Amino acid sequence: MQVTEPLARFLVTHRPEDVPERVRHEAKRSLVNFFATAFGGCRNEAIEILMAALADCFGPPHATLIGRRERADALTATFLNSVSSNVLDFDDTHLRTVIHPTAPVAPGLFALAERRPISGAALLHAFVLGVEVECRLGNALSPGHYRRGWHITATCGVLGAAAAAGKLLKLDSGRMAWALGTAATQSSGLIENLGTMSKSVGVGNSARNGLAAALYAERGMDGPDRPLEGPRGLAALMGEGEDLASVVDGLGDSWELTQNAYKPYPNGVVLHPVVDACLELRPQVGDVARIERVMVKGHPLLRERADRPNVTTGREAQVSLQHSVAVAFLYGAASVKEYSDACVNDPAVLALRSKVTAQDDASISTDAAVVSLRTTAGDLLSAHIAHARGSLARPLSDSELEAKLRDLAAHGAPGIDAGRLIEAVWAMDQTNTAGDVMKLALPPA
Amino acid sequence: MQVTEPLARFLVTHRPEDVPERVRHEAKRSLVNFFATAFGGCRNEAIEILMAALADCFGPPHATLIGRRERADALTATFLNSVSSNVLDFDDTHLRTVIHPTAPVAPGLFALAERRPISGAALLHAFVLGVEVECRLGNALSPGHYRRGWHITATCGVLGAAAAAGKLLKLDSGRMAWALGTAATQSSGLIENLGTMSKSVGVGNSARNGLAAALYAERGMDGPDRPLEGPRGLAALMGEGEDLASVVDGLGDSWELTQNAYKPYPNGVVLHPVVDACLELRPQVGDVARIERVMVKGHPLLRERADRPNVTTGREAQVSLQHSVAVAFLYGAASVKEYSDACVNDPAVLALRSKVTAQDDASISTDAAVVSLRTTAGDLLSAHIAHARGSLARPLSDSELEAKLRDLAAHGAPGIDAGRLIEAVWAMDQTNTAGDVMKLALPPA
Repeated sequence: MQVTEPLARFLVTHRPEDVPERVRHEAKRSLVNFFATAFGGCRNEAIEILMAALADCFGPPHATLIGRRERADALTATFLNSVSSNVLDFDDTHLRTVIHPTAPVAPGLFALAERRPISGAALLHAFVLGVEVECRLGNALSPGHYRRGWHITATCGVLGAAAAAGKLLKLDSGRMAWALGTAATQSSGLIENLGTMSKSVGVGNSARNGLAAALYAERGMDGPDRPLEGPRGLAALMGEGEDLASVVDGLGDSWELTQNAYKPYPNGVVLHPVVDACLELRPQVGDVARIERVMVKGHPLLRERADRPNVTTGREAQVSLQHSVAVAFLYGAASVKEYSDACVNDPAVLALRSKVTAQDDASISTDAAVVSLRTTAGDLLSAHIAHARGSLARPLSDSELEAKLRDLAAHGAPGIDAGRLIEAVWAMDQTNTAGDVMKLALPPA
Repeated sequence: MQVTEPLARFLVTHRPEDVPERVRHEAKRSLVNFFATAFGGCRNEAIEILMAALADCFGPPHATLIGRRERADALTATFLNSVSSNVLDFDDTHLRTVIHPTAPVAPGLFALAERRPISGAALLHAFVLGVEVECRLGNALSPGHYRRGWHITATCGVLGAAAAAGKLLKLDSGRMAWALGTAATQSSGLIENLGTMSKSVGVGNSARNGLAAALYAERGMDGPDRPLEGPRGLAALMGEGEDLASVVDGLGDSWELTQNAYKPYPNGVVLHPVVDACLELRPQVGDVARIERVMVKGHPLLRERADRPNVTTGREAQVSLQHSVAVAFLYGAASVKEYSDACVNDPAVLALRSKVTAQDDASISTDAAVVSLRTTAGDLLSAHIAHARGSLARPLSDSELEAKLRDLAAHGAPGIDAGRLIEAVWAMDQTNTAGDVMKLALPPA
């Protein structure tokens, strides 16, 4: 069975005009969300540490660091922009695989576009194809690969990044296969590292190393014929015996980008319907001092992942049911600010957290929840969310994505003209110089 | 069971004076061999491609590229020097694991030493410890890890590189564990890629990414507590259920560096006794026109790996029994020159290759061989090699290693003062500025 060769041939021969309009629009939505979360993360501690550690190795300032004044060479900028966009766990999610598709793929494309003449249409096309590669590979390896402990965003992302960059570099199918092969031998990333800053290195590397693989192939670095499907290839080593045929079946007929979802809140996806319900109840509650007890009912996965009454850091709070309920009622929000260490240790939040209990109900789907509340006066209030905001059944609207970008720019890169950047992304297919979009991600001095 | 924590503690507390003198000397031998093979590889096609592809991303010229006039930032130089030293498959081998220990570990140490005040004794000590980490991890995961298809030099090398760099950076044990964790999540490399230039990316990354992991940890980037032994850690994902206890058992009592071997010829290790036998017979043969037939007897692995009568490239010829026999008789040598594409397609070599046959003999060990030869006059000549040159039973002498460095410098970096470099490596523990050694690896303009 051949996978790499037909995949490379598809990538090289596919034409921009064969991408359906709704897929192209979804690509733009993913990029709006990408800039949003990169602004949100660009001052994160992990980024500051990486900036300091790499400062001595920065190459020529060819590429923009989203939301920052410093510039770097294309590979370093790709690494850092990928980390910024993913570090808050606020980026997009391909729900079937749990891949965060954009962080590995987009940064290398923008870095190339700042250095070579590349149109917005070409960049969007390459992005669509890169996401297709990483998510199809992820589908083929799911659920065994992630369940065993591979950080699928990093392990599959590097292939998507190489495919996308290879498309922009106009590699022929032989060199595209080499790029995929050099990406495959760089595939890495452990679930064990999630919850620590070192997670970011796996994700950033997937973007950087995928771009590097394409640049090497462009210069003639060869790779094996069957890096994905060979006897000692990626699937044999990092899979659980899956058949890779689905990676190439029906290529071009379906598009994984249509399965991409965007988070309204920077917390675990199982918490989204809970926050929705609390925000719906909040106007009826008025003063939080009236709350005697909050009862949350959800799919068993909710308690398994997020039953954490006692948390002390923002990172832990992102997967705390109790914290998310408390801030939603107290502040009417669950944004980056409500997941800061300061907010997590706020006595008012602690007091409300202690009033929250949770209960399993296997009949409730994972994107649904019921929140019930008893007031000190003995009243009972209740809200049922059938599909969380941001789920595939109830996706964020374009204007909600725009608002997310505005909010996160204000948080991480104040002074950005968010409106102009948003406009530029929606008009991406009209520009001949895709790299110019990055100028709008540079905050004023 | 704890592995990462005791390993980190050992690395941080171990003192240079506790390294036995013979181990320190073996470290120097490994470094002589390292410079030798890096000179040999520094003009290889893979290096030229990587140089061209990365040129646009080179950082400040803080670090020497061995055998070349260009300079690069520390991370890029680490990557390229690692590739140079490994690309010819002429570097050292830890036979039990088939790890090439020096290519991942040494380059980052020299790059650091060109940028910070680091003594030769400190560099040697860090090198010894880094090799210990990669080879102990390799021992623990052997034979399943390599057999399944992981390129063990790259996958385990990144841990050795991080440990060694972390030691030079004087990380405390907490940060050393973080460095090991950030290395673990970057562990990658597929056997499927061997035989193509993309192999070099895996090896170069192990050196680069190990150094990066230590630099990130120095600045405070945290990692998981149990990146090696945790439920979704490196061993769980890339092993076959092995117990990692042996990684830390008896640390400091035995030294894996004493198991390091150096190749006399740039070909497959199974071919070494065959070449030895041919070189022994050659003076008795005189004119090769007298050779009617050559018969080689060896361990079955010899034919399995190297029975290749028809080869057209130098890379294939490196694992061709017939080619190796032919050049040994024709030129009295099996050096880099005899594995060039030109030599492989030389009609005289082709003619002699066709006279070579091979035969299995399971009673012969893998580092032994018998070569018999019939002359056109009907004479029978025979040579039996019990242990190949360069095997652990018959290691290359210090002066043979020196000669290897001189030869390869003449091949890849003519004009180098090999004598001064050799002297500097032997006197490494006397210098306060280990980085100065790299000045001697710079060829004249």
